[in-house]
Amino acid sequence: MPDRSAPIGVFDSGVGGLTVAREIMAQIPNERIIYFGDTARVPYGSKSKATITKFTKQIVRFLMTQHVKALVVACNTMSAYAIDEVEKEVSLPVIGVVKPGARIAVSETKNNRIGVIATEGTVGSGMYERFINNIDPGIRVFAKACPLFCPLVEEGMLDDPVTDEIARRYLKELMDKDIDTLIMGCTHYPLLAPALKRLVGESVRLVNPAYETARELKQMLTYKDMLNDSPFDKQEKDHEFYVSDLADKFTHFAADILDDDSIRTSEVDIEKY
Amino acid sequence: MPDRSAPIGVFDSGVGGLTVAREIMAQIPNERIIYFGDTARVPYGSKSKATITKFTKQIVRFLMTQHVKALVVACNTMSAYAIDEVEKEVSLPVIGVVKPGARIAVSETKNNRIGVIATEGTVGSGMYERFINNIDPGIRVFAKACPLFCPLVEEGMLDDPVTDEIARRYLKELMDKDIDTLIMGCTHYPLLAPALKRLVGESVRLVNPAYETARELKQMLTYKDMLNDSPFDKQEKDHEFYVSDLADKFTHFAADILDDDSIRTSEVDIEKY
Repeated sequence: MPDRSAPIGVFDSGVGGLTVAREIMAQIPNERIIYFGDTARVPYGSKSKATITKFTKQIVRFLMTQHVKALVVACNTMSAYAIDEVEKEVSLPVIGVVKPGARIAVSETKNNRIGVIATEGTVGSGMYERFINNIDPGIRVFAKACPLFCPLVEEGMLDDPVTDEIARRYLKELMDKDIDTLIMGCTHYPLLAPALKRLVGESVRLVNPAYETARELKQMLTYKDMLNDSPFDKQEKDHEFYVSDLADKFTHFAADILDDDSIRTSEVDIEKY
Repeated sequence: MPDRSAPIGVFDSGVGGLTVAREIMAQIPNERIIYFGDTARVPYGSKSKATITKFTKQIVRFLMTQHVKALVVACNTMSAYAIDEVEKEVSLPVIGVVKPGARIAVSETKNNRIGVIATEGTVGSGMYERFINNIDPGIRVFAKACPLFCPLVEEGMLDDPVTDEIARRYLKELMDKDIDTLIMGCTHYPLLAPALKRLVGESVRLVNPAYETARELKQMLTYKDMLNDSPFDKQEKDHEFYVSDLADKFTHFAADILDDDSIRTSEVDIEKY
């Protein structure tokens, strides 16, 4: 019998997964979240499968010490490369962002031509393509790595002609393929959504996997009778945030994304796990 | 009595330190190099002093197992934050890139106004300023973090109007300070030297600490009677390259920078050290 009041573990290579945590808080507000961001080893997007898998397992081992009832892999690169290993490691329900993102894109496309923008790792893994074609082998998927998007977001250049120019170059080959749906396959990218929307126009639907991930998490917890039936009371026990480096910088970012000034962040030596 | 034929340990957070290794190979060609690049945890530039110090110590412990006779910290961020800790850890001669870069800049400036471009970590440490003012307290130092330069270099955008525009923004406040000398305080930046030169013009001297670092290494080995007196014979025993991730990608980059197609790279689990 699972403990319904246990928290949900949500993790990412850094701050990007906060956009997923935010969706979970909005859609299932009773749930308490334990968030981990691997700020000492960020970014993961250009690293190997072996390294990403090793780092992911360490994070999972840390979150297990926090007695979570489910795990959300709030990072596309980790979801693409390491989710099978996570599922082998634990007996808890595990949800990544790639499958929900793929599923919603399939339901949105009219012309069966879907674009994916993501890190080198996620694109190299071919996982979006595989999940989409598992659902519908007739859909053509065009993926493009956008390695400068994360640094641009982290520099705060969300609304800037330089960012527009780089986005124009990255998206050109996808637009030439006549896509009608574009998956923002990295948790940083929704912060660039206005710039991307300006470029791709009204005819292309932008998909943010975070929303769909929170929806699937809710369905899964409902199905397994694991939803928390007591209201979330931050006075009694608040969400918890852990990082491997620079807790204060993370707190600042998280306060902004989650619009919550009471956030406290603790540092964890993740290599010990 | 030191073993003169022992190799020199050269390390960086990734590939940037190869520009330093290249200078050492050019200036003291008898010496054999053991290079380590921490490609699993790169970049270091936006991480904390505590994390950088911990990672640096692990690398030093690994290089000590390779029986090196001297250590070169071929990374500005590690040199700025962790070189004192390295010196405490080992009894070998240790050279970083910050002091030699500071020294040459002091000898070059005519108007006593020096600019430094570097990572957030190096700028935040204030080490260039401190070393320069230790030599000459009358010199004004103006430092500017350029967090997009490394990703732009790694995207190969060395000669590109987008890079020029970003460089123009980063350098504007330094140029407004009427500097006559500019230290490229990150080992990636010399690859942007042509773009930087176009911007700052003939009146500003660009300083590449790699050259001066190799020169100081040679002087120090001479002074301590530790120079290798047998010619380097790659057939007998070649330079060695180690990384914590993506050995093949590193080999490709290194072959290009060092103009050597015979490079082999091995992976090391650096967290074990």
